[in-house]
Amino acid sequence: MDNNRLEKQMAFCKEIDKEKQIGRQTYLADGSRKENDAEHAWHMAVMAVILREYSNEDIDLLKSMIMMLIHDIVEIDAGDTFAYDEEGKKDQRERELEAADRLFGMLPEDQADYFRQLWDEFEAMSTPEAKFARTLDNIQPTMLNASSGGKGWSEKNVHIDQVMERQSYTGDGSRVLWNYSLNNYIKPNVKKGTIRSEKRFGNAGK
Amino acid sequence: MDNNRLEKQMAFCKEIDKEKQIGRQTYLADGSRKENDAEHAWHMAVMAVILREYSNEDIDLLKSMIMMLIHDIVEIDAGDTFAYDEEGKKDQRERELEAADRLFGMLPEDQADYFRQLWDEFEAMSTPEAKFARTLDNIQPTMLNASSGGKGWSEKNVHIDQVMERQSYTGDGSRVLWNYSLNNYIKPNVKKGTIRSEKRFGNAGK
Repeated sequence: MDNNRLEKQMAFCKEIDKEKQIGRQTYLADGSRKENDAEHAWHMAVMAVILREYSNEDIDLLKSMIMMLIHDIVEIDAGDTFAYDEEGKKDQRERELEAADRLFGMLPEDQADYFRQLWDEFEAMSTPEAKFARTLDNIQPTMLNASSGGKGWSEKNVHIDQVMERQSYTGDGSRVLWNYSLNNYIKPNVKKGTIRSEKRFGNAGK
Repeated sequence: MDNNRLEKQMAFCKEIDKEKQIGRQTYLADGSRKENDAEHAWHMAVMAVILREYSNEDIDLLKSMIMMLIHDIVEIDAGDTFAYDEEGKKDQRERELEAADRLFGMLPEDQADYFRQLWDEFEAMSTPEAKFARTLDNIQPTMLNASSGGKGWSEKNVHIDQVMERQSYTGDGSRVLWNYSLNNYIKPNVKKGTIRSEKRFGNAGK
């Protein structure tokens, strides 16, 4: 029994508790409050079990779920960057790389390497598992935004061009889920006006 | 493409969002607030990835993790029953069975059966995967209780006999993790007095 190994593992398990305090911009389905990173990760992972049949490619579900469960751990140090915060996104990558070094580095080396590899793969969308995980990372908040009446979009004055840019790779993991999301969550909110669709920069009608 | 199937699946995915609003009695590691079921399930599942090497028996990690991720969904209808609430525990099983019927029953039949089977197995602790999941279901809150200075125990005036009864099966999934928890989380709190250890029923000294 390597006590030092178990101590490191338990220290990491305790440290990631902080992910429950990293707030996201997405409201719960009933709009009562915004969710946090841990809740988001749990929700995605359960959805993955249910929706895996719609992955474009065969996937190792366990691997994809582990990616989903750990993908936001870096935000314990780096914070959550809102999808449409252009300023915050500038140094997001740098902040997250430092966070990955520190946080995954708390684990025994073999596990630190394993988590880092999965996180890198998720970030790079370089495998079917990463693509499916990224699809759910987009589908889950879109479902919640639509459920809460588009509140998350309208409060931030989000434009359809921004949504479509953000969602440009959602179909890479699952065409079926992307089409469902587009038709059932996004388009109805454009119609309602909770997602803006007039020309940007206030030059409508020019 | 069976639209009815996908509609059922997405309705379930939306419904389980409510698990984020089911509060538990366990404080976060920093004691700032109590956690909820979704956060707890996420935390256990990540811990399972890291700690699987300590399972007494070989396990199918994916299966064990899915159990962990879905085991509290029934509490959306049945509510969380505190481990030491003897009154609440009386009809807990009945309430949870009804909840399982309704909630898992929202899914297409094959998936409803699959989730129900996993939940039954978890409840019955009848397989190595269920035993390991139940071990983590106990280790995770014990770790948090100890991290927050034993606040969850002292506020409820919990006695060591209650803790030991509750933990009677923790070693069935992992002797290593149970020993770690006993020595690093439970015993120090008995020593500090945050877990009571005098005789019960106020007859100390008689």
